[in-house]
Amino acid sequence: MSRFLIPERESLVPYVPGEQPKERKYVKLNTNESPFPPSPTAIAEGEKELALLQLYPDPECARLREAVAKRYGVKEDQVIMTNGSDEVLQFAFAAFCNQSTPAVFPDITYGFYKVFADLYNLPKTVLPLKEDFTVDLPALTNAKGTLFIANPNAPTGIPLTKKEIEGVLKANPNRVVVVDEAYVDFGAESVVDLIDTYDNLLVTQTFSKSRSMAGARLGMGFANAGLIADLNRIRYSVNPYNVNRVTMAAGMGSIKDEGYFQNNCKEIISLREETSQALQKMGFTLTPSKANFLFAKHERVGGEEIYLKLKEKGVLVRHFTGERIKEYNRITVGSAEEMQALLTALKEIV
Amino acid sequence: MSRFLIPERESLVPYVPGEQPKERKYVKLNTNESPFPPSPTAIAEGEKELALLQLYPDPECARLREAVAKRYGVKEDQVIMTNGSDEVLQFAFAAFCNQSTPAVFPDITYGFYKVFADLYNLPKTVLPLKEDFTVDLPALTNAKGTLFIANPNAPTGIPLTKKEIEGVLKANPNRVVVVDEAYVDFGAESVVDLIDTYDNLLVTQTFSKSRSMAGARLGMGFANAGLIADLNRIRYSVNPYNVNRVTMAAGMGSIKDEGYFQNNCKEIISLREETSQALQKMGFTLTPSKANFLFAKHERVGGEEIYLKLKEKGVLVRHFTGERIKEYNRITVGSAEEMQALLTALKEIV
Repeated sequence: MSRFLIPERESLVPYVPGEQPKERKYVKLNTNESPFPPSPTAIAEGEKELALLQLYPDPECARLREAVAKRYGVKEDQVIMTNGSDEVLQFAFAAFCNQSTPAVFPDITYGFYKVFADLYNLPKTVLPLKEDFTVDLPALTNAKGTLFIANPNAPTGIPLTKKEIEGVLKANPNRVVVVDEAYVDFGAESVVDLIDTYDNLLVTQTFSKSRSMAGARLGMGFANAGLIADLNRIRYSVNPYNVNRVTMAAGMGSIKDEGYFQNNCKEIISLREETSQALQKMGFTLTPSKANFLFAKHERVGGEEIYLKLKEKGVLVRHFTGERIKEYNRITVGSAEEMQALLTALKEIV
Repeated sequence: MSRFLIPERESLVPYVPGEQPKERKYVKLNTNESPFPPSPTAIAEGEKELALLQLYPDPECARLREAVAKRYGVKEDQVIMTNGSDEVLQFAFAAFCNQSTPAVFPDITYGFYKVFADLYNLPKTVLPLKEDFTVDLPALTNAKGTLFIANPNAPTGIPLTKKEIEGVLKANPNRVVVVDEAYVDFGAESVVDLIDTYDNLLVTQTFSKSRSMAGARLGMGFANAGLIADLNRIRYSVNPYNVNRVTMAAGMGSIKDEGYFQNNCKEIISLREETSQALQKMGFTLTPSKANFLFAKHERVGGEEIYLKLKEKGVLVRHFTGERIKEYNRITVGSAEEMQALLTALKEIV
């Protein structure tokens, strides 16, 4: 820290991304990346754009928004594209929370919500998940502020149903409800089709997981045109050229290749179920995850021990130190070979 | 605007990027893009990365920082890489300004400084440029706050000397001085080599102009390790994966190809001087620009009229409506053919 940092920032606790170790090669199951490369169409479209990099990207992202709108059955002014879905979440904190409208989210959820709230010096209402790690719906419904709900939740993978989310939307017509669907393509129900009915709904999604584009940084938000205009007001005050040309083109390629996307999602879902069953046989308890990761604790061996021993054996998973979840590890669903390597290593450990 | 936008954001006036018209093809001299494609090495390195887009980029940007540090003669912990240099500027507003440390900048300068100050609800001290559009150095030196100086300045292109900037640094040892060198490679003096001497100096640069990578979104900041750590604290609270994989790789390719970079800068400088002389012969007054653009007003024909008539003839330049500069147009230095097209069109107009 320098002597120039403003005191307001001294207490800021930044987000800690999953390890990206360089000292050796790991079976990397710690950052929920896809085991599949991006669609060949995405790669080809991105490649064409490289020779045009001297020109700024279209700040309106018009062609990509058009493709996304068509694919998701919404209007073009109901879409915003961002540098990863973290960015649209950040814009939502900037646009819809202030001293009298706190940010409301569960105690166990995506770690960045707390960071964004602190970035903008916002009051937070943190609602404990229930004992079984499900969202306390009555508490959420009654909390005053802007609601942030990851669906499925992270790092538990537990989904809410569309009906449950619709209940929250109906009960809170005067509060923005942000539904973070980063992992929705792996088996949970999306609420994108509710944006015409509820003007208080913002849905965020990402190309990072199900579309194999974490390295490209592409996220999106869906909402009625008014909310999207608010988010664009922030975007144009932060970074009008937030999405680069190659990523925009690759994103269009990904949208074109629906079959590849669908197949990869199916494959991950199937591997998740197989791995989950194998883990249960080995004495693990798992949350009912509908994401591309599992959240598991062992009946005998502690969470940190499993994390460290797996790392020793060349398998990297994500361990969180929070009191309620420290016996668990979050394990990304990788390729069939990677899942085999995980199970082999775990057999030796437990 | 929706009914949910917080009142603090209602008065936000977002940055307005230069037009990106799609209805016809223009000789586009309005956004200071390079007329040259990125280095073939940058394209090749970017291309290799596309098949790895399923993996997150390295949040530490280690390899690119290493290459940049070596090229610019600094240490790796004295560099931060960002999603365009706008992002490092934004982080500086977030880290080094608050209610008792206003943002200080000239009245005529890069338009985003005001937007960033408003984004963080910061007090601003706006210092009028002198009659000849040069920076009022005594006023700047005596202003209290964090100083933002574009060198060369935009949209005038007028540079400060290294000695002048060193004077400001010396006179203000307890204030951060941000020197925005977006256009420095076209003939002004960089102060990057002063970061070891002055712990209050932050220098920002971009790959957008001289390295032909506006579409890739890559900027950088140079400062002592303490200031860089502060900026990283903000970066990890905003977007740890701010720079995507392809851009990182292309950036490394650009750094490798020093000859291409140098040649392009020389070519732009030479075209700038030729075009400037031709414009003067046609009755234009120009500021002494050291950037990749000219700032020109005509002795008879008004600024807006020239902008509109050029647009009619298929040549796009940038016109600002501020009281002191409305008779001027900012004209990007493009290729030799583009400069010829500009001069031909202007001859018909004036």
